[in-house]
Amino acid sequence: MMLSYNRIAGQSVERLAALSDGIFAVSMTLLVLDLHLPIPSMVHSEHDLVHALSRMSPRIVMYLMSFLTLGIFWVGQQTQLNFLEKSHRSLTWVHLLFLFAVTLIPFSTQLLAGYPTLRVALVVYWANILLLGVALYLSWNCATHLGLLKADMDPGVPLAIKRRITIAQVLYAFGAFLCIFSIHLSIGFIFAVQLYYAIAPRFVRRM
Amino acid sequence: MMLSYNRIAGQSVERLAALSDGIFAVSMTLLVLDLHLPIPSMVHSEHDLVHALSRMSPRIVMYLMSFLTLGIFWVGQQTQLNFLEKSHRSLTWVHLLFLFAVTLIPFSTQLLAGYPTLRVALVVYWANILLLGVALYLSWNCATHLGLLKADMDPGVPLAIKRRITIAQVLYAFGAFLCIFSIHLSIGFIFAVQLYYAIAPRFVRRM
Amino acid sequence: MMLSYNRIAGQSVERLAALSDGIFAVSMTLLVLDLHLPIPSMVHSEHDLVHALSRMSPRIVMYLMSFLTLGIFWVGQQTQLNFLEKSHRSLTWVHLLFLFAVTLIPFSTQLLAGYPTLRVALVVYWANILLLGVALYLSWNCATHLGLLKADMDPGVPLAIKRRITIAQVLYAFGAFLCIFSIHLSIGFIFAVQLYYAIAPRFVRRM
Amino acid sequence: MMLSYNRIAGQSVERLAALSDGIFAVSMTLLVLDLHLPIPSMVHSEHDLVHALSRMSPRIVMYLMSFLTLGIFWVGQQTQLNFLEKSHRSLTWVHLLFLFAVTLIPFSTQLLAGYPTLRVALVVYWANILLLGVALYLSWNCATHLGLLKADMDPGVPLAIKRRITIAQVLYAFGAFLCIFSIHLSIGFIFAVQLYYAIAPRFVRRM
Repeated sequence: MMLSYNRIAGQSVERLAALSDGIFAVSMTLLVLDLHLPIPSMVHSEHDLVHALSRMSPRIVMYLMSFLTLGIFWVGQQTQLNFLEKSHRSLTWVHLLFLFAVTLIPFSTQLLAGYPTLRVALVVYWANILLLGVALYLSWNCATHLGLLKADMDPGVPLAIKRRITIAQVLYAFGAFLCIFSIHLSIGFIFAVQLYYAIAPRFVRRM
Repeated sequence: MMLSYNRIAGQSVERLAALSDGIFAVSMTLLVLDLHLPIPSMVHSEHDLVHALSRMSPRIVMYLMSFLTLGIFWVGQQTQLNFLEKSHRSLTWVHLLFLFAVTLIPFSTQLLAGYPTLRVALVVYWANILLLGVALYLSWNCATHLGLLKADMDPGVPLAIKRRITIAQVLYAFGAFLCIFSIHLSIGFIFAVQLYYAIAPRFVRRM
Repeated sequence: MMLSYNRIAGQSVERLAALSDGIFAVSMTLLVLDLHLPIPSMVHSEHDLVHALSRMSPRIVMYLMSFLTLGIFWVGQQTQLNFLEKSHRSLTWVHLLFLFAVTLIPFSTQLLAGYPTLRVALVVYWANILLLGVALYLSWNCATHLGLLKADMDPGVPLAIKRRITIAQVLYAFGAFLCIFSIHLSIGFIFAVQLYYAIAPRFVRRM
Repeated sequence: MMLSYNRIAGQSVERLAALSDGIFAVSMTLLVLDLHLPIPSMVHSEHDLVHALSRMSPRIVMYLMSFLTLGIFWVGQQTQLNFLEKSHRSLTWVHLLFLFAVTLIPFSTQLLAGYPTLRVALVVYWANILLLGVALYLSWNCATHLGLLKADMDPGVPLAIKRRITIAQVLYAFGAFLCIFSIHLSIGFIFAVQLYYAIAPRFVRRM
């Protein structure tokens, strides 16, 4: 019987982790390319530069928000990969889908920063976050299904991982929904959710 | 007798893997730089933005297609490297040729996205994919020749790897050939082949 | 009792190190994108090109200074991570804050290179370095607090690390303070501090 | 006695290797950003595109030459790091100098591709290669001096490494010298040297 290529391809968790770290690193750094220097012809004094920089502040907040998003999903993917005994071709492709969504974040961030008053931009941004969440959820299902998880894993892990993804996505969806009333409210809510997950104040340690 | 530099250089599979992951990561993320934001002066309403984004859709499809291409060849290279016991200076240079072809993908993608009606652009894109395939094939031959493969490798592996590269390249060549009739047909066929290799539906698991 | 996601997330020192190396690598290389080629229409002879390149020299010094900054903080972070037994979700987020500051360096460098006569630009640059230092200090406190350090660590290590961060930040702050008298003096002093830390002449080996 | 920070900093060969792979990966991929797409308004037919691409060919040769340069020095650095037992703060800074020279390659390549008829551009390009060679030579001296090399190293290694760096740099310097007669001759000679080192035909295997 012939050996299938698909049974020998994409087995390395280490390579997957290394590619992911590279893509996250580039995406996180590319975000800053969108912070354009104030135009020299409009800056003639210290005061002008302060003014120009303060006019950039919404863009800097957007940048911080996207950095937080990427950080949250980087931690999320890392957590899953830490529980893998080995990889598998199908799981590798689920993660390539996930990484595709990661590379889109600089674009959807620019779109939202460029059109902060248009709902369409916010919906695209949210769809990007949704795709990240769906891919991570699929990845966990795929790993469970194919028996790739470590044997000594705490039995509470699967529930903790799935619950985290679901609750976060419900909160993001609610944030996106708020754009019916106000896009600023929507962005503010999503930003608050990101900060909350990054800082994780003590009273949610138990959650 | 003097020790040759060429016998001590380029021995590390880990370093080769790390450089490759870095180059793939940057190339995959650079592709997105070609997704330019719609021009503000042409967008005055939600409707305008939807319209502008939908006009970008061919470019987004091209981006997805190139991401798939890079993903397929990343998996292909990873699979080979997993079977290496150690590296060798000559093998390292075959992989640098492979990585050179990887760095060209953002350029040939941009070319095809910019000139989707010109055959020359498609032929350049296909030549790039061909170079990737040739380099991978050479790499396997080189590793076999120099005795770099792991001793405990399944005897079916070499055939599985060579068959996969050959079949894929025949399909790509056929896709490129179709541009005699229609470039859109050509792009569609190549895109279908990429999706097929990425998703690998169940009935081909045995192939 | 339910398992908390926060207790299983962000445990891998290796992944944190890999993401950091990626972000430093991209930031260090992006700096060079700001070295624009002399404009062809203004270069007609060898002499013109020499002249154009020499006019770029302040920009090249700024680039070297930022490369040194990134190098110093890369060494600083590496030193801390080498003493970690394992990571923790909170520590991971402190390092993501640190990496956020790293990605801002290309922007604040460009700002200072573009407006070398405005104090605001220097203060922004200094604030960026301060944020790097604060994050590294926090990281060490966090690691000590959570008991993440290796058991066989030399007892002198904590003091050596904290002293280095504090002395360096005092020197940077003094450098920034000098801008009250002259921005060039300020930049010169900070650059001298960077060179001093990079080269570390013999008489400070004991410090 | 107080522990010196400089004795605990920059000890990790793995981190140095990872940062280097990242910087090489980004620099190798950034080179391609200089391959600008032919301007749409000047391309109306298949023939125009072929013509536009063929006019790009000197730029593509320059790109390939720089990719070879980076590949050669990546192999060279890898070879040295493979013989290190551990790292040291001073060695780390020698390698940061080396990596600084690596990040300058995209700039000096652009300069030479933009001004292929000016000697100054060639001299800058050559100075960049010289800096790479000097840093690698310093690195080996530093590692020997500080006793960082592996104990089981073949005694012929130091000579092989130093000879390789010296011969290559003599050839590059001769190539640069040829620009007195003709810059094209100069570029051609350097390109031939690069190809020779990359392909390393059989009759030099013994050298």
